[in-house]
Amino acid sequence: MSNINIGLFGFGVVGQGVFEVIRKSKNAHAEIVKICVSDRTKPRRTAVDPALLTERAEEILDNPRIDLIVEVINDAEEAYRIVRTALLKGIPVVSGNKAMLAKHLPELIEIQQTHDVALLYDASSCGSIPVIRNLEEYYDNDLLLEVKGILNGSSNYILSRVFDHEEAYDDALQQAQELGFAEKDPSFDIEGFDSLFKLVIITVHALGTYVAPERIFTYGISTIHDADIRYAREKGVKIKLVAQVVKVSDEHFTMFVMPEFVEPSKYIYSVDDEYNGVVIRGECYDRQFMFGKGAGSLPTASSILSDVMARLHNYRYEYKKQHYLQKPAYTTDLSLKIYVRYSQTNILHVLHFEHIHEQYVSDESNYVIGTIRLSELIEKRDRLRAPDLFLANLPIFFLDRDR
Amino acid sequence: MSNINIGLFGFGVVGQGVFEVIRKSKNAHAEIVKICVSDRTKPRRTAVDPALLTERAEEILDNPRIDLIVEVINDAEEAYRIVRTALLKGIPVVSGNKAMLAKHLPELIEIQQTHDVALLYDASSCGSIPVIRNLEEYYDNDLLLEVKGILNGSSNYILSRVFDHEEAYDDALQQAQELGFAEKDPSFDIEGFDSLFKLVIITVHALGTYVAPERIFTYGISTIHDADIRYAREKGVKIKLVAQVVKVSDEHFTMFVMPEFVEPSKYIYSVDDEYNGVVIRGECYDRQFMFGKGAGSLPTASSILSDVMARLHNYRYEYKKQHYLQKPAYTTDLSLKIYVRYSQTNILHVLHFEHIHEQYVSDESNYVIGTIRLSELIEKRDRLRAPDLFLANLPIFFLDRDR
Repeated sequence: MSNINIGLFGFGVVGQGVFEVIRKSKNAHAEIVKICVSDRTKPRRTAVDPALLTERAEEILDNPRIDLIVEVINDAEEAYRIVRTALLKGIPVVSGNKAMLAKHLPELIEIQQTHDVALLYDASSCGSIPVIRNLEEYYDNDLLLEVKGILNGSSNYILSRVFDHEEAYDDALQQAQELGFAEKDPSFDIEGFDSLFKLVIITVHALGTYVAPERIFTYGISTIHDADIRYAREKGVKIKLVAQVVKVSDEHFTMFVMPEFVEPSKYIYSVDDEYNGVVIRGECYDRQFMFGKGAGSLPTASSILSDVMARLHNYRYEYKKQHYLQKPAYTTDLSLKIYVRYSQTNILHVLHFEHIHEQYVSDESNYVIGTIRLSELIEKRDRLRAPDLFLANLPIFFLDRDR
Repeated sequence: MSNINIGLFGFGVVGQGVFEVIRKSKNAHAEIVKICVSDRTKPRRTAVDPALLTERAEEILDNPRIDLIVEVINDAEEAYRIVRTALLKGIPVVSGNKAMLAKHLPELIEIQQTHDVALLYDASSCGSIPVIRNLEEYYDNDLLLEVKGILNGSSNYILSRVFDHEEAYDDALQQAQELGFAEKDPSFDIEGFDSLFKLVIITVHALGTYVAPERIFTYGISTIHDADIRYAREKGVKIKLVAQVVKVSDEHFTMFVMPEFVEPSKYIYSVDDEYNGVVIRGECYDRQFMFGKGAGSLPTASSILSDVMARLHNYRYEYKKQHYLQKPAYTTDLSLKIYVRYSQTNILHVLHFEHIHEQYVSDESNYVIGTIRLSELIEKRDRLRAPDLFLANLPIFFLDRDR
């Protein structure tokens, strides 16, 4: 077995983790031979031979010694240029960039197929939990009904602090940032976009269909309020930011990212702090639950290492489900039961509910619980961004789901 | 993509599940063309074209139309003959027979390699949870430190009834049998052998080393007594039947199957009833937890289907870890802290403890908590089968493990 020579793009938290993990793994048969960074002189935690560092992407992209590119930079557009260029040159790539992948997957899948080259990205979704590989390889039949989970560690950490430790939302957010779980601009995490991008990638491997992020209803936790937390506590549930893709019939599936009232009997109820947890539901095996560290330097790096090792055996995604004859189509034409808390905004003037189950009005805040079309939520989503609104899914009436 | 023609051995609970699942799975590109049973005339739940049934193994083994054999019969020795014959003829096999595999894996691995033919068996360990495939493909580097879990649904069901529902052991066992979770001869499940066989298979894919079942300390739950349950309740823990393989140093690993006092903070604490749960611990990703239905007709059948689908893409285990340069070796030369409850047997005359931490004597029963070599337990294992003894692992002092 010959060694793989790796060109690494990015030497931040994850990049340094990759460097460390590959050095530790004595049987990996892999070596990092060049690292491209934006600033060679920047001081770094990890000691590295300065000769390995370069600021010029071509030193990796045009280097015939390099067998594999590992891309772990932050900038999604720059990552896209690197990955696309590498693939067009026939160089396989391992990437962890969910924003880039969620946007460009159709083109990148096509390039993989036309140029007979591999792009692996298990690290992009749920860090160390091998969700993509399992959906691609193990749940590769049409018995899959649903993939649902907590895919973002930062927002989950914040919600855990608020629910289990009764901390204020702002304190919890600050703490998440100090611990390095949340980005400096936290909107990516707490507005649900990080979960959304992961869900888009997961859906390609779960059901064989790519749905562009902008077509998917996404609502975060930034407007959560004491009143919502109190309401959830009274009902004995937790609020979690949940991403899900669900087959609603043989012909259709739906997907969305939304806070959800989660009952203690559900597997994801006990996914706390910065952890991720994914429930895979199928026709025959009921529910399977995968749980682990979804983010962080070393967990993400170990996932990158698994993809690097897979390249030693020429592994590539085959996107088998894209070629199924009976592939379900995406729909938003279905009803959800939701909770909306509001104060200034007159929610009943904004949203058209099919049915109102409960309405509560008080000096402090108001809420309504009603049945509504998912398409209506997508249509009105800009108006739902008002800071005095908070929306959560009540999955109880949506589908039979006992865990 | 061409169809796979399957010859099925066995049409009991699992075999009928396989038949049903493959019929349901419209994109499976697989068809069962022959079913070998011991008695064609036996009435069966699943309606099947009588022309599909045969009592003669050669009708499958000598049939050139058949691309793949699925073997799900009960008899381990008969299964071995079928699987070995098929592989020697170059016919790939999917099997779920853990007893057969645990005993014959080294030979069956060699035949796969010399005859360039595949044997897949994810269904043999933890039913629908893809443990083998993940260990083989995803955790295929040397960062893996431990695989530990509840691998047997029947014994776990019994312990759950006893702990959560305060039922008597005998009632719980009878219930498990009535529900079809336990075999008619329950010793396979409750004496730990089912867990042991799965652990042997898991270890081949976790660390690349085969250890024969008879070299591994295995202790079941059949002698559990009210006094043990009371003791566990007082300490706020549950007793679970746990199988584990653990790296104890860079050079060595150990493995055993034993009841264990499990604290509420551990992932496996909440694996109840007939479920299985596996914790995979690694150097970089800490702990990952996989949870699901470990047995039953359809969960096992869906796992078989995943292996059948994998054969559509010519997947085979590469047993990569067997070729690692730095493969750890099996050892029993280490200390455990254990609890032994006894009445007639004078345990201190049977076992040589390195240190006794606690000793309790009463009219009803006695127990001792002590540190002991694992090799000592193996040496004395026949005497430990006395009906008045019960033994459990106290993992607290063994290794640092916070979950």
